[in-house]
Amino acid sequence: MNFPGDWLAQRAAATPDRTALVFEDKVWTFRELDALVQTMAAAFERTGMRPGCHVAALLPNIPEAVLAIHALARVGAVSVPLNMRLIPMEMTMLVEQTEAEFLLYSDESRAQVLETRAGDCGATTINLSELSWDARLEGAQVDPAPWDAHSHSSVQAIVFTSGTTGTPKGAMLTFGNHFASALASAYHLGVLPEDRWMLCMPLYHVGGLAIIWRACLYGIAIVMLERFDETAVLDAIERHRVTMISLVPTMLARLLELPAAGRVLKQVRVILLGGAAGSPKLLERCAEVGLPLAPTYGLTEAASQVATALPGEWYMRAGSAGRPLPFTRLRIINDSGAELPPGEVGEIVLSGPTVMKGYYGLPEETAAAIQDGWLRTGDLGHLDNDGHLWIVQRRTDLIVSGGENIYPAEVESVLLQHPAVSEACVVGLPDEEWGQRVVAVIVPVDGAAVEAEDLLALCRARLGGYKLPRTIRSVAELPRTPSGKIVRREVARMMQSETMGAAESSKTEGKRNGKSG
Amino acid sequence: MNFPGDWLAQRAAATPDRTALVFEDKVWTFRELDALVQTMAAAFERTGMRPGCHVAALLPNIPEAVLAIHALARVGAVSVPLNMRLIPMEMTMLVEQTEAEFLLYSDESRAQVLETRAGDCGATTINLSELSWDARLEGAQVDPAPWDAHSHSSVQAIVFTSGTTGTPKGAMLTFGNHFASALASAYHLGVLPEDRWMLCMPLYHVGGLAIIWRACLYGIAIVMLERFDETAVLDAIERHRVTMISLVPTMLARLLELPAAGRVLKQVRVILLGGAAGSPKLLERCAEVGLPLAPTYGLTEAASQVATALPGEWYMRAGSAGRPLPFTRLRIINDSGAELPPGEVGEIVLSGPTVMKGYYGLPEETAAAIQDGWLRTGDLGHLDNDGHLWIVQRRTDLIVSGGENIYPAEVESVLLQHPAVSEACVVGLPDEEWGQRVVAVIVPVDGAAVEAEDLLALCRARLGGYKLPRTIRSVAELPRTPSGKIVRREVARMMQSETMGAAESSKTEGKRNGKSG
Repeated sequence: MNFPGDWLAQRAAATPDRTALVFEDKVWTFRELDALVQTMAAAFERTGMRPGCHVAALLPNIPEAVLAIHALARVGAVSVPLNMRLIPMEMTMLVEQTEAEFLLYSDESRAQVLETRAGDCGATTINLSELSWDARLEGAQVDPAPWDAHSHSSVQAIVFTSGTTGTPKGAMLTFGNHFASALASAYHLGVLPEDRWMLCMPLYHVGGLAIIWRACLYGIAIVMLERFDETAVLDAIERHRVTMISLVPTMLARLLELPAAGRVLKQVRVILLGGAAGSPKLLERCAEVGLPLAPTYGLTEAASQVATALPGEWYMRAGSAGRPLPFTRLRIINDSGAELPPGEVGEIVLSGPTVMKGYYGLPEETAAAIQDGWLRTGDLGHLDNDGHLWIVQRRTDLIVSGGENIYPAEVESVLLQHPAVSEACVVGLPDEEWGQRVVAVIVPVDGAAVEAEDLLALCRARLGGYKLPRTIRSVAELPRTPSGKIVRREVARMMQSETMGAAESSKTEGKRNGKSG
Repeated sequence: MNFPGDWLAQRAAATPDRTALVFEDKVWTFRELDALVQTMAAAFERTGMRPGCHVAALLPNIPEAVLAIHALARVGAVSVPLNMRLIPMEMTMLVEQTEAEFLLYSDESRAQVLETRAGDCGATTINLSELSWDARLEGAQVDPAPWDAHSHSSVQAIVFTSGTTGTPKGAMLTFGNHFASALASAYHLGVLPEDRWMLCMPLYHVGGLAIIWRACLYGIAIVMLERFDETAVLDAIERHRVTMISLVPTMLARLLELPAAGRVLKQVRVILLGGAAGSPKLLERCAEVGLPLAPTYGLTEAASQVATALPGEWYMRAGSAGRPLPFTRLRIINDSGAELPPGEVGEIVLSGPTVMKGYYGLPEETAAAIQDGWLRTGDLGHLDNDGHLWIVQRRTDLIVSGGENIYPAEVESVLLQHPAVSEACVVGLPDEEWGQRVVAVIVPVDGAAVEAEDLLALCRARLGGYKLPRTIRSVAELPRTPSGKIVRREVARMMQSETMGAAESSKTEGKRNGKSG
């Protein structure tokens, strides 16, 4: 039993005249989307793109990015979406790591791509804004797409998630993973033919990418925004009758600052809240307003949603991530791998058809992550007596700021490149607007003097803006356990009291940065 | 990629406290249903039931029938549901044909089973009403069901559909067929966690059986009635907040005779209308009232729905069966197998994951029905320019009366058993209440005299009541084509004018009969 794709071709055959995509004031039906994708796929093939080849994409949320995802699938190429907020050096590294033969960009990301050394590592760059893929849409003679171009076991995308080792890891998500995720989400949250899903999350995050496949499989419209903007979101919800929206807590908090937010957001059927847990204060406000929230726990490695609380129920257990989605098995285990009973905190592990194929090119990391078919999330949580999941702590050291995941090890490894730094510890501190913000503590090499500004400059040269520490402090030594392990919680406690005065400036910088995420 | 079952066990883990089944004033949650099924499965195993064995079931729509479907799946046995309206001789034949080792019945069908010779052909009979499967539900120590007991390629049921040859054919439906059907239906019609599906169709028809698996996969409640009764249906819709209901045209017509029908049926989200096309008069009435109708074209061989018009759209093309469901490909072909363009009438053929594995024990019929992966439906229709399906005629000679399929060949073969009958032709005539009614024309053996009452007695002894001819007429010869083929249409025309006076008595008998269907 299989549901081979091309799902867009199938969807265009099933409901050609339904709206597929709304962007600004432009609207495309599934028939139109399919025809454009077919033209783009033909153009891709002319560039020499072949089934199985890896194609990196540095694209904002523009219609071309949606088309490219479908066109790459149609060609049989693997999508490698890159975070628009990475710096060129990081991008070059990812292009190399994934052996991408092509790099797609647009006028919006042209400057960034020119700075990368993608060309040096053999990748052909293609500016989608220049590609004449839509020139002859009217009356174009395009062969119909094959109905069953790819199987469930084919990799659709390699989506990056940072690793505890500091090396970004590319999770290979198959068509089957997306299919299973879409299906489980539909059965869990419901789906209606008249649904319209707002996409204001980046397409390079699994939460954004998942919407592309869901909308296509369900036959519903995507209402896409190029970037998150509170007023634009509320306006588009009203004008385009949006019924589902995916948000991270920072976005939701900002929306709730607008007077119309309550009225408009209550028209939506489901507000999927992911990326990080909403703060108690935010959840309280949502309950007051009566929002149809669906707080969710998701992972790139499981093609997005793993557990989700339902709109009609979430407020009764505010803070929980709800029950696991159908077909996903979730267990809490202790250090020796034994399953724990309800109420006891341990590592969350899961198995099911949404679990990724593995990390690209990283067999050891894959073997560590997937053991006997169970994905080790590294996150801590417990199940209550009714089977609802409560997240106690994301992967011990993971920092989630404004919906972006930041792994301390990656920032620490950059700080340690400075000759005057002997030790570094990066932690996340609670932040009212961003959920968490990044702060760093370093231990200088004996007798050396080191300026925070120099370290920040080093970070800026090697890390995307959202990963930069808001504060860097120098200490004589780091708090350690008797066995020598750094006690991150102690570092965080220390920094918490130190940085209270810096909250205002942090907020200012954050706001500027967050606009693109 | 696979979604192995036990789906009920998975559903009970996902949403244990949701309502799974409502029957009369009793309510079972998924947790309760799962526990009962586990107890019944254990009882089945104690009787010697083993994976792969065939288990016939002669059960009305009672909770035990729902439990049995799940329990057989859990044991790994294949369900062989038998039509309650068959006579014992027909049942015995089907038990033999499917090599069923067991025959499940209940107090309601006890008398019928005692009359069958199921025992003679080696089947062990089990009265579910006597089985102590629920005796120790409270505090029962039941092992949890395995999560992945069966794969998509396993046969769940053998569902009978009559054949043009007169021999009933058992369509083997796999778990994968049901999975695909549920999924495609959800994406087509939508599904909501708060949906509740009314089951007032017999569970031995694919339209009823499909609801069992859908409700389980979606995690929604079934509101079941033992038999169709207009007042009870409307009452249950209101009391149990039913949002989806599957009906055949005869049922819908009867409902619409009640004053409250319009108001109550408009509270439902989807009225799936299948089994046969609604008459223009019925559709007109539905459009006037503004009912959320979903006229559907379905087949046992494709696990139910193939094409379905949507509630918000059907009235714009009243009489069409709408678009094919996602993942199903539908083509119209001519006699030489070439695909026909929109507007041209030909045979409907289809392929996709809902198409049955084949007919049990009938390799030749299977090979004729499924050619190169395409199911030949034998039904005639055309697609319009927008891809909506219009049924022109069900399999040339198929008679659909009150939702039951009757194949003339089967009735004809019984008539021909009478020594005084040399030729027989059975056709369906339009019937306001039943859609069609069965009439027969025979040619007596030279010089022989034959009484209609004798022939009817013969039919009664060999055929279920719904297959009995309402009128039998004797003629000197049947209208034939130059090549000698009987012109059924001509026979129908002839009988149409003859039987007008008999309409009233036909209606009376029909009503009594129809109560159980």
